[in-house]
Amino acid sequence: MMKELLEGIKNGNERKIAQAITIIENHRNMGFKLLKKLYRETSLAYLVGITGPPGSGKSTLTDKIVSKWREKDLKVAVIAIDPTSQFSGGALLGDRIRMSNVSTDRGVFIRSMATRGSLGGLNPAIYDTVLLLSAAGYDYILIETVGVGQNEVDIVDLADTTLVVTVPEAGDEIQTFKAGLMEVGDIFVLNKSDRPGVDKMQLTLEQMINLADKEGWEPPIVKTVATKKDGIENLTNKIDEHKNYLEESKLLEDNREEVMRRQLINLLEEKVLARIVNPIKSSAEFTDKMKKIKEVKKDPYTAAEELLADKFQI
Amino acid sequence: MMKELLEGIKNGNERKIAQAITIIENHRNMGFKLLKKLYRETSLAYLVGITGPPGSGKSTLTDKIVSKWREKDLKVAVIAIDPTSQFSGGALLGDRIRMSNVSTDRGVFIRSMATRGSLGGLNPAIYDTVLLLSAAGYDYILIETVGVGQNEVDIVDLADTTLVVTVPEAGDEIQTFKAGLMEVGDIFVLNKSDRPGVDKMQLTLEQMINLADKEGWEPPIVKTVATKKDGIENLTNKIDEHKNYLEESKLLEDNREEVMRRQLINLLEEKVLARIVNPIKSSAEFTDKMKKIKEVKKDPYTAAEELLADKFQI
Repeated sequence: MMKELLEGIKNGNERKIAQAITIIENHRNMGFKLLKKLYRETSLAYLVGITGPPGSGKSTLTDKIVSKWREKDLKVAVIAIDPTSQFSGGALLGDRIRMSNVSTDRGVFIRSMATRGSLGGLNPAIYDTVLLLSAAGYDYILIETVGVGQNEVDIVDLADTTLVVTVPEAGDEIQTFKAGLMEVGDIFVLNKSDRPGVDKMQLTLEQMINLADKEGWEPPIVKTVATKKDGIENLTNKIDEHKNYLEESKLLEDNREEVMRRQLINLLEEKVLARIVNPIKSSAEFTDKMKKIKEVKKDPYTAAEELLADKFQI
Repeated sequence: MMKELLEGIKNGNERKIAQAITIIENHRNMGFKLLKKLYRETSLAYLVGITGPPGSGKSTLTDKIVSKWREKDLKVAVIAIDPTSQFSGGALLGDRIRMSNVSTDRGVFIRSMATRGSLGGLNPAIYDTVLLLSAAGYDYILIETVGVGQNEVDIVDLADTTLVVTVPEAGDEIQTFKAGLMEVGDIFVLNKSDRPGVDKMQLTLEQMINLADKEGWEPPIVKTVATKKDGIENLTNKIDEHKNYLEESKLLEDNREEVMRRQLINLLEEKVLARIVNPIKSSAEFTDKMKKIKEVKKDPYTAAEELLADKFQI
């Protein structure tokens, strides 16, 4: 089965790719075996992250960017990060359906993934899926997040080029998330720019960019009306410009090294928690400590120390 | 010093409390010593969580709720969870200043805390601070989050009563976060309800509540205009009703047991990562593996296994 799967992935067989992602998500150890075999012959696809507040039109933008790349015969994969899937598995179905005109097109692979893994923290399968899709020959991987929390910032931090999407009426949100957004934004997209308030919003963004005073790349502001495809060509050109800038300045290499470093740390954390903490959670000793904590005969700090007392080699 | 600090906390000395939280945040092991001493004589304060999209007026609401409780001579603490502090340490300063008319009032303690800890994941100091503030004699602790990501849901899940704040114009956002919000909301606050679109929003919320069809407590919708103090009395009454419901149905006990269980698991995870993964990250072996990964002579999956090879007692 492993051999067939590997062949399928390398040939870009979408059914096999989807199957492999499911393995990576649900059977981590089997997934590791697969990824070990793929790693050496893989160079990472170019990663573009899209983030911004809900309702800013990220899905429609993703749809149009993908269409533009497809016109140039580039192979594109989309990973939609879904913070709600833990609860419902389907809150974003509407978004996915809106993307239907690209999803029926071969050469575009779309996958929805949960923000976080079973152990909490960023879903480790996201990194692995990026690697898998790279091995499958996709040129660009678009990672779209919903929401504006810390997990979302972590995910887009993975990306080589990060688009921060906003809309004319989002003044308050921008103020609140200013610091975080400035940190991650390589290109600011002012979507729905046919709406009132666009000039004021542009001014706000310009001031933020000037204040941040980043060295090297100065993040441009690109106005779009995604529903009408306005500004999309300009946006993909800016993505290319940023890509060239990263390649020429060797920053692309640095970014990838940082991604690999985090991937390695995440794997260490995942393995340690799975190996040490998970068995404790389902132990009789844990139940016993919980009982004592509840009866206020023990505090959780002492309980944690006792539960770990014989677990370290040190 | 420990004795003086303990005395200060028990006497509700705000300067000592602030000092203790700083210890809990930055010197975990010293913090654990302190918390061990406090645990046995502490019963948890009543925890109220406030969440909702940016710009929905959560800070103003918090301000008015706190004032209402102060009129009844209740001691109140506010923990403002700040997702951006990792970057700037101050993006939410504006929000804090808006709360200034309560912050100068004795009997209200306000503290801003980062969403996540140095190890990633939910900041473990948040649980500890709740315990500390309970020991200091606060009757109510309000936990206010900014943002709508998974971390925020985790935090409000801590609360006994969770308020989900929304505004008339937030239709799209509500659709997107429907599942997550329905799961956590005990009371829905329709703030800025003097704005157009309030009836439509109320209908949307009613439909969501009906669809969820929760057993037991049916989440009420409370209309407020926080800036004018409209609806605040009604809101605090609803919080009391929910509190009574939880107490009578013994659900309060269940919720607290779940909070303690998570606190214990978080402590286990924190200790294991600090003890095993942190030293590896700064080891020469780690640097060596990273070099090999970069040169594509090794994959991260094998590297992680090798780095952990001698770390388990098993």
